[in-house]
Amino acid sequence: MESELKQILGAILPPDEAAMAAARARQEQLAKPPHSLGRLEDISVKMAGITGRIGTAVDRRRVVIFAADNGIAKEGVSSCPQSVTLAQTINFTRGLTGVAVLAKHFRTELDVVDVGIDAEFNQPGVRNRKLAMGTRDFAVEHAMTRAQAVEALRIGAEAAQRAKDDGVEILGVGEMGIGNTTTSSAVLSCLLGLPAADTVSRGAGINDESYRRKIALIDEALARWQPDPADPVDALAKVGGFDLAAMCGAFLGAAALRLPAVIDGFISAVAALCAHRLNPLCAAYMLPSHASMERGYHLAMEAMGLEPMLNLNMRLGEGSGCPIAFEIVAAAQTVIRDMATFEEAAIDDGYLAEIRGNRVYQGEA
Amino acid sequence: MESELKQILGAILPPDEAAMAAARARQEQLAKPPHSLGRLEDISVKMAGITGRIGTAVDRRRVVIFAADNGIAKEGVSSCPQSVTLAQTINFTRGLTGVAVLAKHFRTELDVVDVGIDAEFNQPGVRNRKLAMGTRDFAVEHAMTRAQAVEALRIGAEAAQRAKDDGVEILGVGEMGIGNTTTSSAVLSCLLGLPAADTVSRGAGINDESYRRKIALIDEALARWQPDPADPVDALAKVGGFDLAAMCGAFLGAAALRLPAVIDGFISAVAALCAHRLNPLCAAYMLPSHASMERGYHLAMEAMGLEPMLNLNMRLGEGSGCPIAFEIVAAAQTVIRDMATFEEAAIDDGYLAEIRGNRVYQGEA
Repeated sequence: MESELKQILGAILPPDEAAMAAARARQEQLAKPPHSLGRLEDISVKMAGITGRIGTAVDRRRVVIFAADNGIAKEGVSSCPQSVTLAQTINFTRGLTGVAVLAKHFRTELDVVDVGIDAEFNQPGVRNRKLAMGTRDFAVEHAMTRAQAVEALRIGAEAAQRAKDDGVEILGVGEMGIGNTTTSSAVLSCLLGLPAADTVSRGAGINDESYRRKIALIDEALARWQPDPADPVDALAKVGGFDLAAMCGAFLGAAALRLPAVIDGFISAVAALCAHRLNPLCAAYMLPSHASMERGYHLAMEAMGLEPMLNLNMRLGEGSGCPIAFEIVAAAQTVIRDMATFEEAAIDDGYLAEIRGNRVYQGEA
Repeated sequence: MESELKQILGAILPPDEAAMAAARARQEQLAKPPHSLGRLEDISVKMAGITGRIGTAVDRRRVVIFAADNGIAKEGVSSCPQSVTLAQTINFTRGLTGVAVLAKHFRTELDVVDVGIDAEFNQPGVRNRKLAMGTRDFAVEHAMTRAQAVEALRIGAEAAQRAKDDGVEILGVGEMGIGNTTTSSAVLSCLLGLPAADTVSRGAGINDESYRRKIALIDEALARWQPDPADPVDALAKVGGFDLAAMCGAFLGAAALRLPAVIDGFISAVAALCAHRLNPLCAAYMLPSHASMERGYHLAMEAMGLEPMLNLNMRLGEGSGCPIAFEIVAAAQTVIRDMATFEEAAIDDGYLAEIRGNRVYQGEA
């Protein structure tokens, strides 16, 4: 199992520097002040590094959603009952949730993967990769075994492979799992060596007491289980979740397959950071979407040197920021492909002489 | 002429509070944590206030681009020759510029209006509303007469009326005019009572000397012509531009017609602020798009209490941020229309019993 992970990590290569240089050169030739299209230019350069070509299409779009229950939810860290994980997972397939509505609007497929929902069920459109009936409560024991963490990574990488095989051109990485802001803060605190007070936000409207409890639970678990900050797999196993680990695997797989992967909100960002810590080259294949309202999001972005493109105060999760971000990536690719160069945009004297012909000058008002 | 302006200003009514309350109530019923879709929710509420209905379509989209030359360009405040105003105006109609490429990608019409390009010409697709062969150099004299400023406002309002008549559901307000970051900084400094050093950015890559010169020219002109900070028309006439004034008129006209108007970058934001100062109700009809790299942009937004939705480090102008913003508004409208309420999203026991049937449990890894 660990050998499979090593193989994926080893398959991640640096971005195509020659293609990036060519994209930068083309951006300089386009008829606009230097870098005046800002991040749209940066995205087109990054996409060139990923795909090896300039202005590739991003018509086939997919968000993979990993759904799982988290044992820590038993400790009352969430304002939602655990059953919401199952209900919303079903609702993804019925087109009813936030990401489902946005995905339909923006012509995006969903790939819904059950990596550990605490219920036995059979819902068309939900892929069964259940590792267990939810993780264990990390306040009491390790959330999962190391073998389970590695298997979750593999399931995530498998989803990236499935996307690549299906001709998907850009992949978003989302989740559903009550309690997963707690697991994400715990993993982030471990990786960055920060107290939970720095990485925990209020999440989905919890009260003061739950907020303090969430912080205390994380600090206690980190002190007790001592996950290794240099080993994201250890952090994921001891205080993470199946959803989080699978998302990390999807980022790794996408990087290995040179498939652009869009980061959604806080949980997606922590999964991305785990991937980045396993192999820093991953960041070259990741595109952040929106600035989440969760404070830990910004810590994760900073640690990877990434900056989000959308400022929408969102904190829904599910992958809901990805479909909008896909449109911005598409815009960036369109600009580098279709905008005129200074040469093409030049208006020659003959043309000017022609249009200066019979204009009726209307005079000053 | 002034009476026509008064009529437009008087036609601007408060947003529809009942529709906004209904939109807020619906957002609370949708199956998601409260306000977890952040600005997408705010936009849907604002759109309800503008249109009087929930989740109206924004399928028919237009960016109006006002093009004009600015006399101050003679003072060497720009890195581009003045002829670029004409060349890029022509290129809008040929689909070659940044906004043209983005507009085509995002199914957006362009309405290109010549309000004072310093050239006689006849280009199909460019509407002739020329007020003069560019404004005068505000370092030497007032940029235009007050009557011209009012006429430019009227031409802007007329463009909003044309959009409404054509069935346009959302309007972006863009520009082309070499020297118009200088006129915009001058007008902004006047309205906010700030020295030019606070409102001037480097613009399109000017050098240190031009930068200092730009600041000095503005401070000197404001000291000399003493435009009235309480009278945006006076500021536009003395140190503004035809493009800037027409854009202001478009925001006023859109507000009077209850047509949502999207603010592009710095110049568009200053025009919006002029409209806001003429009638503060205007802000209820404006949607900002991207956070411009120009420092003055943020001052204008703050003065209107608006916050941009895109973080793309753009500073191209032309209205280039609008087509992307239209997609985000469309997403916001789709969410409020199509997302399930908690009631609709509830999974009843019968359904759960059914899907819990024949699932093969794959066990722990």
